[in-house]
Parts: sequence; C-alpha cells; structure tokens
Amino acid sequence: MESVESDYRRLMEKVKELLVFQSAEFVVYWDMETMMPPRAINLRSQQLALLSRIEHKMSTDPEIGRLLEEVMRHPKYEELDAVQRRNVYLIKKQYDEQTKLPEELVAEIAKQRTITIDKWKKAKAAKEFSMFRPELEKLVELQKKAAEILMKVKETKNPYDALIDIYEPKMTAENITKIFGELREGLVSILKECENSSKQPDINMLKRIVPIDPQRKIAKALAEFVGYDVTSKEAGGRIDETEHPFTTGYYDDVRITTHYHEDYFTSSIFSVLHEAGHAIYEQNINPEWIYQPVGTACSSGFHESQSRFVENIVGRSPEFWSYFLPKLKEYASGTLSDISLDAFVRAVNQVKPSKIRVEADEVTYGLHIIIRFNIERDLFDDKITVKELPEIWNQNYKDYLEVKIENDSEGVMQDTHWASGSFGYFPSYALGNIYSGQILAAVEKDLPDWRKQIEKGNFTNVRNWLVKNVHIYGNLYDPAELIKKITKEDVNVKPFLDYLQRKYAMIYEF
Amino acid sequence: MESVESDYRRLMEKVKELLVFQSAEFVVYWDMETMMPPRAINLRSQQLALLSRIEHKMSTDPEIGRLLEEVMRHPKYEELDAVQRRNVYLIKKQYDEQTKLPEELVAEIAKQRTITIDKWKKAKAAKEFSMFRPELEKLVELQKKAAEILMKVKETKNPYDALIDIYEPKMTAENITKIFGELREGLVSILKECENSSKQPDINMLKRIVPIDPQRKIAKALAEFVGYDVTSKEAGGRIDETEHPFTTGYYDDVRITTHYHEDYFTSSIFSVLHEAGHAIYEQNINPEWIYQPVGTACSSGFHESQSRFVENIVGRSPEFWSYFLPKLKEYASGTLSDISLDAFVRAVNQVKPSKIRVEADEVTYGLHIIIRFNIERDLFDDKITVKELPEIWNQNYKDYLEVKIENDSEGVMQDTHWASGSFGYFPSYALGNIYSGQILAAVEKDLPDWRKQIEKGNFTNVRNWLVKNVHIYGNLYDPAELIKKITKEDVNVKPFLDYLQRKYAMIYEF
Repeated sequence: MESVESDYRRLMEKVKELLVFQSAEFVVYWDMETMMPPRAINLRSQQLALLSRIEHKMSTDPEIGRLLEEVMRHPKYEELDAVQRRNVYLIKKQYDEQTKLPEELVAEIAKQRTITIDKWKKAKAAKEFSMFRPELEKLVELQKKAAEILMKVKETKNPYDALIDIYEPKMTAENITKIFGELREGLVSILKECENSSKQPDINMLKRIVPIDPQRKIAKALAEFVGYDVTSKEAGGRIDETEHPFTTGYYDDVRITTHYHEDYFTSSIFSVLHEAGHAIYEQNINPEWIYQPVGTACSSGFHESQSRFVENIVGRSPEFWSYFLPKLKEYASGTLSDISLDAFVRAVNQVKPSKIRVEADEVTYGLHIIIRFNIERDLFDDKITVKELPEIWNQNYKDYLEVKIENDSEGVMQDTHWASGSFGYFPSYALGNIYSGQILAAVEKDLPDWRKQIEKGNFTNVRNWLVKNVHIYGNLYDPAELIKKITKEDVNVKPFLDYLQRKYAMIYEF
Repeated sequence: MESVESDYRRLMEKVKELLVFQSAEFVVYWDMETMMPPRAINLRSQQLALLSRIEHKMSTDPEIGRLLEEVMRHPKYEELDAVQRRNVYLIKKQYDEQTKLPEELVAEIAKQRTITIDKWKKAKAAKEFSMFRPELEKLVELQKKAAEILMKVKETKNPYDALIDIYEPKMTAENITKIFGELREGLVSILKECENSSKQPDINMLKRIVPIDPQRKIAKALAEFVGYDVTSKEAGGRIDETEHPFTTGYYDDVRITTHYHEDYFTSSIFSVLHEAGHAIYEQNINPEWIYQPVGTACSSGFHESQSRFVENIVGRSPEFWSYFLPKLKEYASGTLSDISLDAFVRAVNQVKPSKIRVEADEVTYGLHIIIRFNIERDLFDDKITVKELPEIWNQNYKDYLEVKIENDSEGVMQDTHWASGSFGYFPSYALGNIYSGQILAAVEKDLPDWRKQIEKGNFTNVRNWLVKNVHIYGNLYDPAELIKKITKEDVNVKPFLDYLQRKYAMIYEF
C-alpha cells in the first residue's frame, strides 16, 4: 500500500492540472472581452466551448474519484494536516457536484443558457418580457432539476439551498431570510432619515467633463493606492476597458477592467477601487497554496466584502477624499478645482432610491438584493411562477424602494443573472456588505487610527491587515467559519448597519 | 459498413477539435508576448506546458489513427473529392510524424530546448560560445535522433531532408543546394555592382526622430493600405508591440506585432508591411476550409514569399513611396519634410554587407541564409561538429559577405533558431524570396500596370490577385505544386534575380 502522502500527492497533481487549465481559460475569456478583433467572435465561441468541454472532462476524470477514495479510506488519512484535509474535502465536494449531474442535463442547461441570454437581450431592447418568458421558464425548469440533484449530493434542506451553496458554502435560504429581515429594517430606517434630511447633496459636479486620458491616469493612481501593482516590472495586474467592469485571473496574473465615461468620471473611479479590492484578494491568498483548491477565494460573498470594503468603506470615506481630491483635481487640470471636500464627499455618497441595482448607493443597494433573493427563493419553492415575475417585481420595488417601474427592461429584465441561470448568486452581494461591516469593526479594534492613515494616503496598514486576516486564508474555511475566525462572531448585520448609521448621520446631518 | 463520407466526417470532427485548440493556444501565447503582467511568467509556463501536453494527446489520439484507417481503406475512398483526400493526406502525415516519435524523445527535446535557449541567452550576453556549446551539442544529438526516425516515416533520403520537410514539404537539401548555388552567384554579382557604384545612398535621414505616437498611426495607415483591417467594426486583426515582431492567429483573428524606435522609424514601417503580408495570407485562405488541415498555409517558404512581397517588392518600391512619402511626412509633422522621394527610396534600399541577418538588405539577405543552410546540412550529414561552428561561421562570413566577425554573439549566436532546435527552417527564408520573384513575374503578366496602381495608393488589385492565386489555395498543394500552378514553372531563381538586377541597376545606376 502506498503511503497516504503519496496518494495525496498524486491526487493533487491531477487537481493542479485542472487549476492551471482554468487559469489559461481565464486568459482566453479575458482576451475576448478586451482585445479580440470583432470578426473573431464565432471562432472564439468554438474555442471557449471546446475548452469548457475539456475542463469538464478533466474535472470529472474517474481517476480523481479513484484517488479520492484511496486517500479518504487510507488508514493513515488522519496524518494529513488540516490544509491537506481541506483540499481533499474541496476536491470531493467539487467532484461529487460535477459527476452527479448527468452530462445531458449539464449540456442542456448550457445550451438553454445561450438561448435565454440571447432572448433576454432582444426582449430587453424591445421591453417585452413575454418574448423572454418561455425561454426563462425552460431554464428555470432545468435549473430546478439540477438543484434537486445537487440537494441530494450536498444534503441541503431544499433545492435552492443547493444553489446558494455553490456561491456561499453552507449558507441557507432560511438563514439569509432571517439576516435579510434585519438588514431590510435597518436600511429602510437609514433611508428614511436620509430622505427626510434637509441636507441633500448636490451631484451636478459629478457630471463635469473629465477626458478619458486623465481618467486612465487616475485609475493607475488608485490602483497604486490600493497596492494593486499594474505598472512596475514586478506587476501582477493590468487595467483594461470593457462595458461591464470585472476582475479575472489567478495569483500572479489578476486583471481588472473598467469603463471611462467623459461625463461621469466617478464611474471609473469607483469601479477601479471595487475591482482592485477583488484583485488584491486573489493575489494575496497564501502563495504556498498555488495550484491547490485551498488556494482560491472563500466565497462570492467574501469576495464582495473585499471589493466593497475598498470601494465604499475606504473609497467613499471623507478621509480618502481628503487625501485624493487634490490629486484628482490635478489630473482633471482645472475642471474640478472649485469643488470643496465636503460637497464632493456628500455627492459621492448621495442616497436615493433608484430602479437600477448597479447604480444604487450603499444604503439602498441591499434592498435591491433582498427583492431578488425573495423572488428566487419563492420561485424555487414553487410559490410563484415565472409568469408572475414582472408583477411581483414591480410590487416589491414599490414596497421596498417606493419607485414605480415603467417597463420590464428597467425592472425584472435589468440584470443578466437570471438569463444566465445564475440563481443563488444574488444574496452574495448583500452578504458581502454585511461581512465588510464586521470586518470594519475588527479593523477598528486593531488599527484605531486607520482613518487618519487613509487621510495621509496610507492604505498599507489596512491592506496588510486584510491580507493577514482575510486574503491569506483562501478557501481554508467556509465563510461562516472565516467570519467567526476574523471577528469572533457569527454573521451579524449590526456592524454594517452601525457603520451606515454613523456615516450617513454625518453626511445627512441627522 | 458506414459510408466513406460518414467516416470522413467523424475524422474531420476530431481534427477540427485539434485545430480549434491550437487556435486557442495562439491566444495564450500572444498574450504572453504582448499583454501579460511580468509577474505571471511562471504561471504562464505551466499553462503553456499543460496546453501543449493536451495538444499532443489530442494529435496522437489513437481514434484518429483508427478513423484514418477506416477512411483510407474504405472501398469507396476514391469517391472523396480532391480537397477531402488532401485533408486525409495531411492528417495522415501529421499523425504519423506525431505518433512515430517516442514520447520520451519529444519530452527530452522540449526540455533540452528550454535549457539551450536559456544558455544561449546567457552565452550571447557573455559572448562565450563555450558556455552554449555543451547544451547545443545535446540538442543537436536529440534532433538527429528525431530526424532519423522522421526520415523513415517520411521516406526521405537523409535525416536533414526530414527536418526541411516540416517547413517546406517535399523540398530536399540536394535541391536547395542546387538552387542556392545559382542564387549565390546572382546575389554576389549584384552585390558587387552595388558596391562598385559611385551612387551610394545617404541613410542619415533614417535616423531622424519620429515619436512613437505618429509611428503608431503610420502603422495603422500601412495596414489599411495592405487591406489588413485592424480598426473597423469588422476587423479581424490588431497591431501590438513586442521586441521581435511576429504574426499569429487563425482566419478571423490574425494579429501582428511590431516595435517602435524613435530614432529608427523605418524599422516599424517595414516590419508592419512584412507582418501584414503574413496576416492577409492567413486571413484569405478559402473560408470554407476553416477547421480543416487544408485551411492552413502551404509552407513556411510560401508564407515568407507573401510577407516579402508586401515588404520589399511593394513596400520598398519607388511607386509605393511616391504615394506614401507625402503621407509619412504629414504624420511626422515636419521632421521629414525636406526629404526627396529619390533620396528616400535609395536610403531604404541601401545594399551593404552586414553581420546581422535580420538587418540585411534584399540582396545580401540570401547570403546569410545560404551560410546557415550549408552549415545545418553539413552538421546533419556529420561532416562538421558543433565545436567547429564558430570557426566555420566566421570563415563563411568572410567568404560570402567579406565581413569580419569579432565575437560569437554577432556571429554564430546571433539567431535563436538553433538554440530553439529549429533546424531545417532557415532555407524557407530564401525560398520565400525566390517564390516572391516568380510570383512577381506572374503578377506583371496579369496586371501590367500594377506599379502605376501602387503609385496611386491602390494595392487592391495586387492583393486580390494574391488572394485568388496564392492565399485561397491554403494547403491544397505542396509548395512545388503550388508554385507551378501559379507560374507554370518549377522553383526558379531567375525571376527573383532579374527583379533585383532591374531594381538595383536603377537605384545604384549600374
């Protein structure tokens, strides 16, 4: 009999191949979004479809199953250390999920997803939900089938929990319902105070023209502030342009994108801070864990906690702008020179209910997410149907945000998530905010003068704290364990609500 | 029994996967050379090594062998059309080459290549051939082993012919020796006339400073002239920057690179014309043949014929500069305004023996290639040893070009080809020149006023001629067949020498 170490090593060799392969796929995907000549789109679809077939074959290779068995049944299994056992656990989880779903179902979902996205684009342009509905219905039915199978594999209480678990391991709809209940109450109360305040920000200054070239320089300066290296000879990142900003990559090659609008210069500023927050997370996972499952991020919610920490908690703070506004004015060479720090900070922190999630402020953002979560949960519990979505959506937006949806393109069809079949993902966004509040509380304990440091342009200590307490742990723990390790608490909305209350009481003077 | 069409279709499905996979590999390789953050180099090596292992597995899949057998032994094999039979031939050839080489030897060569390239870089920097020699000796021994195996598979007369055949199918060292003998004689005679002329060009104007930004615009204008679309919404190409210019890609996604030097603006001009010549070849192979072996270029020599046709025959002609010099002056905003057409055309056509191949002019270039070919041939015939290379090299440069090599970095170690194990490739460069001369003769028959068209800035008719008579045929014929189809002649150095004689008699007034 081989030693458990030797069986483990062979297993890890197989898994390394899969991770390296996926990291190469990122490059091809990134290229499509940023660099690819337009005529290449059909060729690229063929390439990505092939790479994804190969990836699926690698991740369901029976050899992985055999090696897993050998390692897990080895009499000396317990001699593996905690990191090794976590790797085995993560490989087993992934392998079971991948192999228990029938290949025909996976292929059918992939095919239906392409059709649904295409229909969604057309229906959104035409403002006609009825065009989108039949395809969405088919996709939901297929996802329900998949969720029911995954429910058995993952031993969750219901199918929707099995989908949530993909993005936020071990989190449940029941738990989220409870958390989001508290979150909603807190957000609505802060929102009301902001709305009732006589101190409403003036946001006209944000519409001033800043040409693209200085905006590119600002983006690089922001990346440098965050400690996301995109310029030096040791750089492990880069900033490019896409309509929808994103972060992709692995360890020493993590790239972000942004978009530059001349008449909306803060759009690129906050998207760069947001994506740089994602990027430094990916880059600072324990380097010893490269090519291991433990060397990946903890969860989508944790990823979002890092991007929002940098974008909102740091990037929309008065202290940050006290440092950066003079620089911004220099880059904009005159256009912004008359703007006061106070007025600018108010402007970038305006709270105002809106119809579109991606444009929402820190306070109302969570309400958008709660609406989507409630709908997804009820859809997968068969309490509502796809046909009813527009009506329910519009009613919810009235109830939660007091906005009136005029048509389904600005309503239920605004996001690509459902068309892409990404059910279970939305809660991560709000969980990220909640985690970021808890993490902030911990930062404040360890670095009581952190705001003063930011004011001096020094993010290094906060960054190092995040690396040491969050990033470095990669996927060693499930999110519930990690948040407890970091904060000594379970998931808790209070710190995030406290942070918002303090901040907006100051901004809106209530 | 399945119909031959159905067996053929299954074979082509397998091969399509391989071609799509290779086209995705191009993207990852291109990214490494142009976009990749520097820190990512180790990760990228892992990715490329894995992709190349997967590619090797795909290309040696026994299923391809089985399907090949079925198709080729099918009683109705002859019902396949000429294109289909060519595909079967090319698949069989590739499959035999790939499967007959033992995997350990392939792996050993790949490993030794990496080591040799690394040593070459260091030895070149240190100007010490002795550092490089032991590793080169190992690589040559391994390549000889491979060549001996390939010789049996391909049924060539000697091992070196089997290597030549990789780049220039069915060409032989014997044939090249004869062709190059005639080529040398012609080149030396023209060189002598140039050297003896009292009309020597003044090249000082080529050192004037042209900033990078206008050079980028010039590059785009040149691409547009050639009909290589890098800017429109239908673009299938792009221009980026690397130290060593190259072309890579497939059909609708073919990308070129160049380098910009402020004090050497013609460097990017001619490299863009050269690479754009490669690019339009790749893009204009019969579109019906995408994902088929026949839908690739004919040979390295033919590729080079297209790049040199655009760079030299068109791009260094008085007619082209009559059209483009005024534009160049505009882009350079004043710096070049006093330069006369006549003086400029002379400057970019200076003939002068030099030590470095990549800087050589149209006349002496072939002499550099002949030297390398003779050495490779004798090395693989065991007539000379690696140890003797510097001495033989230096003697050859004295005999052929009358230049004195001061050290091996400007001598035998100037090129990466041997360090990379690319023996058999060099002859393609000179064969490309020879083909380009024959193609020119055919163009002149069909489009007698082609030079007048170029003078008006119209390359379209010449381009369409090249597409219709060269590009479109892809890999339907071996190079000897294709040149005969195009020109009704066998490979023949005379048209190329005639072209040079006419051109340089005019430039140097002899």
